Amino acid sequence: RVDASSLQLYRWYYSRICQWGLGLTIAVVLLLAFVERPSSLSISSDPRYRSQPWEPPCGFTESFELVCLIVFTLDLAVKSYLIGWDEFRKSKWLIGYTAVITVSVIDWVLSVSMVCDEKLRVRRLLRPFFLLQNSSLMKKTLKCIKRTLPEIASVILLLALHLCLFTMIGMLLFAKTEDPKKNGEWELHFRDLPASLTSLLVLLTTANNPDVMIPAYSLNRLYSIFFVTFSVIGTYCLMNLLTAIIYNQFRGYLLLSVQTSIIRRRLGIRAAFQVLSCQGVQQAAVECVRVDAVLQVMSRVQMKSYYRAAVTTEAQQCADVGYMDREQFRKIFDELDKDRIEEHPPLPQYDSPILQRLQVVFSHYYLTILGNAMALANVMSICTILVLNSEKTTAERDNYIMESINLCFILYYLFEMCVKIFAFGWRGYLSYKNNVFDGLLTIILLILQITIYLTFRIPYSHWNPSSQSVMSLWEMIRLVNMLIVFRFLRIIPDIKLMALVASTMLDLLKNLRAFGGILVVVYYVFAVFGIWLFERAIKPPPQMRRPSFCSITSWWSTTGRPSWTHTADTPQSKKKQQAGVVMMMMVMMVMMMVVVMVMMKVVYSPQLVQDLLCVLVAHLLGHVGQLVCGAHLGELHLQVGSQSQLLCYRCGEDQISNICSAHVQRADPGANRRRITLSTTPTPTLTPALVTHTHTHTH
Amino acid sequence: RVDASSLQLYRWYYSRICQWGLGLTIAVVLLLAFVERPSSLSISSDPRYRSQPWEPPCGFTESFELVCLIVFTLDLAVKSYLIGWDEFRKSKWLIGYTAVITVSVIDWVLSVSMVCDEKLRVRRLLRPFFLLQNSSLMKKTLKCIKRTLPEIASVILLLALHLCLFTMIGMLLFAKTEDPKKNGEWELHFRDLPASLTSLLVLLTTANNPDVMIPAYSLNRLYSIFFVTFSVIGTYCLMNLLTAIIYNQFRGYLLLSVQTSIIRRRLGIRAAFQVLSCQGVQQAAVECVRVDAVLQVMSRVQMKSYYRAAVTTEAQQCADVGYMDREQFRKIFDELDKDRIEEHPPLPQYDSPILQRLQVVFSHYYLTILGNAMALANVMSICTILVLNSEKTTAERDNYIMESINLCFILYYLFEMCVKIFAFGWRGYLSYKNNVFDGLLTIILLILQITIYLTFRIPYSHWNPSSQSVMSLWEMIRLVNMLIVFRFLRIIPDIKLMALVASTMLDLLKNLRAFGGILVVVYYVFAVFGIWLFERAIKPPPQMRRPSFCSITSWWSTTGRPSWTHTADTPQSKKKQQAGVVMMMMVMMVMMMVVVMVMMKVVYSPQLVQDLLCVLVAHLLGHVGQLVCGAHLGELHLQVGSQSQLLCYRCGEDQISNICSAHVQRADPGANRRRITLSTTPTPTLTPALVTHTHTHTH
Repeated sequence: RVDASSLQLYRWYYSRICQWGLGLTIAVVLLLAFVERPSSLSISSDPRYRSQPWEPPCGFTESFELVCLIVFTLDLAVKSYLIGWDEFRKSKWLIGYTAVITVSVIDWVLSVSMVCDEKLRVRRLLRPFFLLQNSSLMKKTLKCIKRTLPEIASVILLLALHLCLFTMIGMLLFAKTEDPKKNGEWELHFRDLPASLTSLLVLLTTANNPDVMIPAYSLNRLYSIFFVTFSVIGTYCLMNLLTAIIYNQFRGYLLLSVQTSIIRRRLGIRAAFQVLSCQGVQQAAVECVRVDAVLQVMSRVQMKSYYRAAVTTEAQQCADVGYMDREQFRKIFDELDKDRIEEHPPLPQYDSPILQRLQVVFSHYYLTILGNAMALANVMSICTILVLNSEKTTAERDNYIMESINLCFILYYLFEMCVKIFAFGWRGYLSYKNNVFDGLLTIILLILQITIYLTFRIPYSHWNPSSQSVMSLWEMIRLVNMLIVFRFLRIIPDIKLMALVASTMLDLLKNLRAFGGILVVVYYVFAVFGIWLFERAIKPPPQMRRPSFCSITSWWSTTGRPSWTHTADTPQSKKKQQAGVVMMMMVMMVMMMVVVMVMMKVVYSPQLVQDLLCVLVAHLLGHVGQLVCGAHLGELHLQVGSQSQLLCYRCGEDQISNICSAHVQRADPGANRRRITLSTTPTPTLTPALVTHTHTHTH
Repeated sequence: RVDASSLQLYRWYYSRICQWGLGLTIAVVLLLAFVERPSSLSISSDPRYRSQPWEPPCGFTESFELVCLIVFTLDLAVKSYLIGWDEFRKSKWLIGYTAVITVSVIDWVLSVSMVCDEKLRVRRLLRPFFLLQNSSLMKKTLKCIKRTLPEIASVILLLALHLCLFTMIGMLLFAKTEDPKKNGEWELHFRDLPASLTSLLVLLTTANNPDVMIPAYSLNRLYSIFFVTFSVIGTYCLMNLLTAIIYNQFRGYLLLSVQTSIIRRRLGIRAAFQVLSCQGVQQAAVECVRVDAVLQVMSRVQMKSYYRAAVTTEAQQCADVGYMDREQFRKIFDELDKDRIEEHPPLPQYDSPILQRLQVVFSHYYLTILGNAMALANVMSICTILVLNSEKTTAERDNYIMESINLCFILYYLFEMCVKIFAFGWRGYLSYKNNVFDGLLTIILLILQITIYLTFRIPYSHWNPSSQSVMSLWEMIRLVNMLIVFRFLRIIPDIKLMALVASTMLDLLKNLRAFGGILVVVYYVFAVFGIWLFERAIKPPPQMRRPSFCSITSWWSTTGRPSWTHTADTPQSKKKQQAGVVMMMMVMMVMMMVVVMVMMKVVYSPQLVQDLLCVLVAHLLGHVGQLVCGAHLGELHLQVGSQSQLLCYRCGEDQISNICSAHVQRADPGANRRRITLSTTPTPTLTPALVTHTHTHTH
């Protein structure tokens, strides 16, 4: 739909505020689970100590939910209006969106009509869909996972075969014998088929590794061969093969993505040329664009100022001719492939020779080393005091000494900061990220220190343990110490290899957002499902924690290591066994998710420098959407009409949102995000020798 | 050294018998540890039940050892004689070999003079060196590991920093408080610096994952953030980064190896051409070789008959000219790059139409499916009986039924085998590996079944539980059942994807031999070291197993999951703490070994088909050494002399053993082995799309 009012709507819909609002709504609807009825929003997780969770009155969470659902409905309406009926029918996501909203509303009505006393709220299970639906990056990742699933099916099958065969051999080996002394293994791990299967399944994750074989091993050492064989084939070979296959699939997919992105960018530039040239002189045989039109577009396009400047400079070189042909137009955008060279402002000029001498001293590299040494000394001193005081309670500790030591160090940090500001000037100081981190922490430390002095007046009176302030002295000092320890991370950029590794890791974390989102979705669904399944099935004995929403966190941290198997074995009720089977299925699925996590580690095949380059390229690719589709260009487009639109329609749906529709939008944050993550793609043609070469080249 | 007698010696030294003898000696010297004094060669590993281990008389193991040492000395003498003094001085391995033998002999003399009552036998620690020294493949792998170590140092450093900082923050967070109820975390995991460090180190391996956070978590759910952050950064990011870096290093190294191999092969062919052409007509302007000389060489070269036939056929195409120029000579060896197409012998021809009809029926694919279905049915029946009998002791079970069912199935298997032999003929039947596996198991099953009948006369008398034969009926049936379960693996080749995965896995296992050897070396050293360290330090309490040589197996199976930390915490003696620190260092080192193991999983980056191709190429490369260096060629070489020898000396030591020295040896098994493992190298230029293409192409 390309008329004036819908373009206005488009522009408004993709404005930052609107998208933030949508994101906030999704966050609210997801967080509702924490306060909803079977909630466990308590400080302690121990059911013996924890207070009764706050029960919201009926209608409280429901009203929030209604607001969210209305927002989603509006969102759906706008989206489907903008995309048009034909495209809407083709988009499975939008149809799913409609279905989920419908089901949620029906479920909500049921829920309200039953005065919040319903058994099962389906809509809670469906909520993560909103998160998935709103992120094009997550949709892409999901597509990739879907593509991978059939490929790994064969390995899964082999794994299942392996498991079953070994279960049978295990049951044959560890059958119940006459001698009750020799029945240890049978009793504990191979009692019946489900027990044996569980034992070996858990062994596959190495969670019960030595325990499962101990009874048999103490009987006869040779039994260990069975378990070792099982582990070697299952854990080391098959599981890793799974990882490797997924890795391979993902690499191929990401490579394809980058290729698609590059093609899309070319197409975008071509389309922009077409649009601009149509405006220009049409009588010329060779199509060309007016340079001032290009400059005008550039000035209104939303992109990083550095790149805008570079492209504008490049374009102005053709200004004397006044026109650009297609090749030139393409070339000016090659600037986007070049990296920004970070420039630090020049050192301030001082007139006095003493000041100049001081500046030389303070801007020397040794000052940084001294600063690092001081930070190390501070951490060491804290460590020493901690070790000395480790057996004392917090009240018995002499916080005065620690406080004094910290004060000295913090004053030194302040001195270092001032001296550096003097040497580099304000802007120079802040142009180093390292200094920003450093200075921020120093200031926070100083503020905390002053607060401590004001509150406890340490120099005058010895500390009074009974003082009842918001935070005790120990807590304040603890905070100070933690910040000092955290500040010690400033040494990382000064060690070259560590800096490389750390920056790689940061990029890795950045690039894993999509996977993180999918993990959240999976954990959310499992948690909600778990609450529903086990709310009544397992009665909480005094020592056992009740499975609750916060099982998310424990699931997260166990990731596939089913620690429940130990606790679940002891009491044997029928319900439990039934729950066990469900659990096993769930563990299977969680294991698959773990595999996905494992895969992440490999996706970022860290041809370190090479990948940093990839990040760069992908960053640049991220700008293409906005580049071609500035507001100005969009309006031009409206006047020109059919030709380039036709060009766009050939390239499928994604293209449309990028080139045709996006000309109205300022900056589609989704599109931007989508491209940035492509940096996970290693370019596999470079041999390591070449990488090393690039490495030396870039440094 | 290239004179007649030393060539004779060379030939003898690299003969199969001699190399096998050396291998056997190494095996004996390594296995001695099992029977030597602090041995634990008992059936049970439980010190409460196990019998006093057999103590060999003093001088028993020592005499064996002396023989082995003499063999090693001889080996060293021959090797250094053959290689010459100049090369000997350059070879660190040979110098090390000398040193190790010297130390071992001195230690042995000391040991004997003290009548086997010495405290420490250094030579036990040195024994794995013999294994390393004898395998060129393992030496190469070790070199690669050495190359990788400095690269991963930065990640290790970052990991150490991560660990230390989190330890300090943990100690600050979980300090001892006034309220003894809230000290759970402090008491159990953060009591002092070593305890905290250990807790978090173990958390890094996820071995104590939920346990370590439970006391804090039950106090306040928010504490889990600390542990989750630690795990995410440490376990998921840093550890995986480590894996990835090692992966990358290894891939680069292996790529280089393949390149080196190809260059070496080219060089070998070139040298062979040179040698042969010198023999030929030298008046011609263009160098060329006589085809009959080539054919004569080919007939005496040791290589797989298939390739020999292919190369000979290729060479005979030039037979009418009588001469070959360099290009043609190079081309005939391209045959080695081509895979052998497996051909099954033709079906036997029967005259009778009925037999022909039967042959069509029995050679049909459905028969295989029926066979698989029967195998499945048999496994299912065993499973059912096992499940039904799982609560019965072995004596109570009704083995008669199981026996009868198995008999029926085994008779069917026999029928299937006969019918297949009828349809395909003997040679046709055996040309399928699947059938060999199948037939072998069927025959074994049949023999076992007959034995059972003869021993227990099942059809006539019901089984008598008190019968005292070598194996009880249950044990026999158990064996039969296990074999049947094992036979079920025959379905794998019939499922295409699974077959691919399984063959990949087999290749993987084959290629990991070198790593396996290095692992054995490391475990051996650690085990011997562990025996020496902990023999007196830890007194075995009744419930604790004494660390013994068989800790190898338990170490193997725990691989980096320090289960000892749980047991080692409870009794607190001084010696123990001291042992704990050593242990921690050891765990660190074991962790590094684990990393090496983890890396293996990635080394075989399974671009499945692509890698299978690689295996092939590497297999072919494995033949180059023998190809160029047949006995005939070697003798020619002696007559021709300097020119190509000079060529050889330029290529370094490895070359020499391959081209110059190896012309006398029939087949250097070491060199052969070395090349075959290069198949782990993925050729990283192929995109997955291409791989898929190749995939479809090869099928």
